[in-house]
Amino acid sequence: MGIVYVYRRAHFSASHRLFDQALSDEQNAEIFGACSNPNGHGHNYYIEVCVAGMPAAKTGFVIDLKKVKKILEEKFLDKVDHKNLNVDVDFMKGINPTTENIAVAAWKQIASHISEGKLYSVRIYETENNFVEYRGD
Amino acid sequence: MGIVYVYRRAHFSASHRLFDQALSDEQNAEIFGACSNPNGHGHNYYIEVCVAGMPAAKTGFVIDLKKVKKILEEKFLDKVDHKNLNVDVDFMKGINPTTENIAVAAWKQIASHISEGKLYSVRIYETENNFVEYRGD
Amino acid sequence: MGIVYVYRRAHFSASHRLFDQALSDEQNAEIFGACSNPNGHGHNYYIEVCVAGMPAAKTGFVIDLKKVKKILEEKFLDKVDHKNLNVDVDFMKGINPTTENIAVAAWKQIASHISEGKLYSVRIYETENNFVEYRGD
Amino acid sequence: MGIVYVYRRAHFSASHRLFDQALSDEQNAEIFGACSNPNGHGHNYYIEVCVAGMPAAKTGFVIDLKKVKKILEEKFLDKVDHKNLNVDVDFMKGINPTTENIAVAAWKQIASHISEGKLYSVRIYETENNFVEYRGD
Amino acid sequence: MGIVYVYRRAHFSASHRLFDQALSDEQNAEIFGACSNPNGHGHNYYIEVCVAGMPAAKTGFVIDLKKVKKILEEKFLDKVDHKNLNVDVDFMKGINPTTENIAVAAWKQIASHISEGKLYSVRIYETENNFVEYRGD
Amino acid sequence: MGIVYVYRRAHFSASHRLFDQALSDEQNAEIFGACSNPNGHGHNYYIEVCVAGMPAAKTGFVIDLKKVKKILEEKFLDKVDHKNLNVDVDFMKGINPTTENIAVAAWKQIASHISEGKLYSVRIYETENNFVEYRGD
Repeated sequence: MGIVYVYRRAHFSASHRLFDQALSDEQNAEIFGACSNPNGHGHNYYIEVCVAGMPAAKTGFVIDLKKVKKILEEKFLDKVDHKNLNVDVDFMKGINPTTENIAVAAWKQIASHISEGKLYSVRIYETENNFVEYRGD
Repeated sequence: MGIVYVYRRAHFSASHRLFDQALSDEQNAEIFGACSNPNGHGHNYYIEVCVAGMPAAKTGFVIDLKKVKKILEEKFLDKVDHKNLNVDVDFMKGINPTTENIAVAAWKQIASHISEGKLYSVRIYETENNFVEYRGD
Repeated sequence: MGIVYVYRRAHFSASHRLFDQALSDEQNAEIFGACSNPNGHGHNYYIEVCVAGMPAAKTGFVIDLKKVKKILEEKFLDKVDHKNLNVDVDFMKGINPTTENIAVAAWKQIASHISEGKLYSVRIYETENNFVEYRGD
Repeated sequence: MGIVYVYRRAHFSASHRLFDQALSDEQNAEIFGACSNPNGHGHNYYIEVCVAGMPAAKTGFVIDLKKVKKILEEKFLDKVDHKNLNVDVDFMKGINPTTENIAVAAWKQIASHISEGKLYSVRIYETENNFVEYRGD
Repeated sequence: MGIVYVYRRAHFSASHRLFDQALSDEQNAEIFGACSNPNGHGHNYYIEVCVAGMPAAKTGFVIDLKKVKKILEEKFLDKVDHKNLNVDVDFMKGINPTTENIAVAAWKQIASHISEGKLYSVRIYETENNFVEYRGD
Repeated sequence: MGIVYVYRRAHFSASHRLFDQALSDEQNAEIFGACSNPNGHGHNYYIEVCVAGMPAAKTGFVIDLKKVKKILEEKFLDKVDHKNLNVDVDFMKGINPTTENIAVAAWKQIASHISEGKLYSVRIYETENNFVEYRGD
């Protein structure tokens, strides 16, 4: 039959400030502009994870999306939803919360827990107009 | 011809914390739950304003939506986009930034500047699932 | 301050068959067409409930939308999600599951449980193109 | 039971130029800006019509939305879809195709053909951010 | 010039029950949960097909999307829209209607009829949050 | 870390007529149907550009999306928004404005200006149901 790609999308609300600790406030403002507002701003983020694999003959599933939903919630969403990404999230400590860095961090949180098929991509929508995809390579 | 209702929608990204200054952190947490996370969280908000009136014979417009866009930007969006609603916004000082209170505050910022027709409603989308409308009465 | 209208949207997946028990299969087919396919078909429905009232001074809420979410889940969504609306739902027994009738039934399930403000409208989206609103009068 | 409001949404692609024949090209450009580009521009418009009435006991319908779909197609969509609103549409002759004027013209095309319930509103989306509603009064 | 990928999206409403005929009702319930409700449930599915190829010099089309629309309707949509996927669809007989299996079945229905370019992918959205893509390999 | 793909979406409103200058009006009508209406029609187009590369250690950006936004505006959007694609756009002169040809033309306008990472794909949405992607090979 061949490879099938299954996707699960979920939502989280978080605040952040683009900010490199090695730079001054002025340098951060120059590079990141309004995104470096000291008191932060926020987004309704969407995360979209894709798992690739062969559907099992018995279930017709690559992986039960309820499993993906649970992994996503436990390993990622519960840690970022209604949080400040600069301060409240252990796996983002010391990481500038650009959409690129959030996507890579989400991949690391999730990839090893996918028990059937393989994690193929993680997409993070910061807004409807700005989004990022990471495929682990 | 009769009344026509014209709508303009716009977007802003902001962070907030639901928080009543008269209450303790514990009381705030009890009432507002995750929405009262001390370091805040955030949203991609949408604001939708509606102006009601008779289209002018000459232009076919109730009001040129480019004017509404400009009022929205100058009186509201420039003050809230990429900001922290609890700290950075003069017209939200001392106001708990619930969606209800944001909608009423937006009305007050905008209503008197609508030069043709009358402001009919202000709607604020906090997420796709939670939103609020205020009609000024 | 005046009345504010707060909205909560939620999703459910259900199957149905438009079908009047007092009519023959042929008559049902003539009136309802493909919507009366004997083995049913289904939709991703959205329900949107609106509660109108004055925001409380202490909380800034008309009603905490988490309460609305809970009422919606207990009184409506848990009974219709992943169900057949003709067969599985107690409060739809003997009722032809048109979108109109679903909206009225949802109102009856929910209205008396709204403890702050008043239920103002219930909207049911059957598809992006077909939807219905009921305001209880 | 009371009044129920049923909605049907549909799509059309059309071009237009905002332009008042009584004015010069310069005056049109001054009032309408880029919207008065002499060679026109265009939109994916959405029209949303609402019919209000009591659901019939026999069918559970205010009006069969398949009827509304057919009226919309015959009286409106077939005349505007893939057309130039300034030149190709009989019922827009001599009318400046602002969204306001399109909504009023659509109402006039449709209202008398609604055989059950009454036309309650016509909404025209020019873009996701600019839209207009007419309620016939 | 190189390869261009053209996409056509369409909608269908169907009901289904996740169900493996080789298993008992209890086993089906254990594996598929609420998705195995004996009386079924349903979705507004979207199908998105992609054809890849070089645009023809004369037309500027990889393939006229009106042709893809017609193939989609005749070979797939007319057989699944307003149907029960477990019972009413010849090409789904004996197949558990998971989103994965629907995507593969749609590919088989459509691929050989694409006369210009080649079918590149078939995507099925079961909901906004759960979807599947098949690329034929 | 590996490659990350960053996306920027933007909107433009334009009119067009599918039309091959080497053919007669009758031949154009036969090939392009309603899309070849002599007075044109129009769309709310969306363009989605993707840049692929390694995020810079200092900024966490593949490329600052504000730069992509500026390139998109200067090299593409300012030339097509509120325009007639057959007449008003220098880089579309003599090109039949199919979605395929618009995507390839947009690629040529933008690719050489991407200063960090590489342009990976350009997607043009003509409607929600019809869209095209070009990857430059």
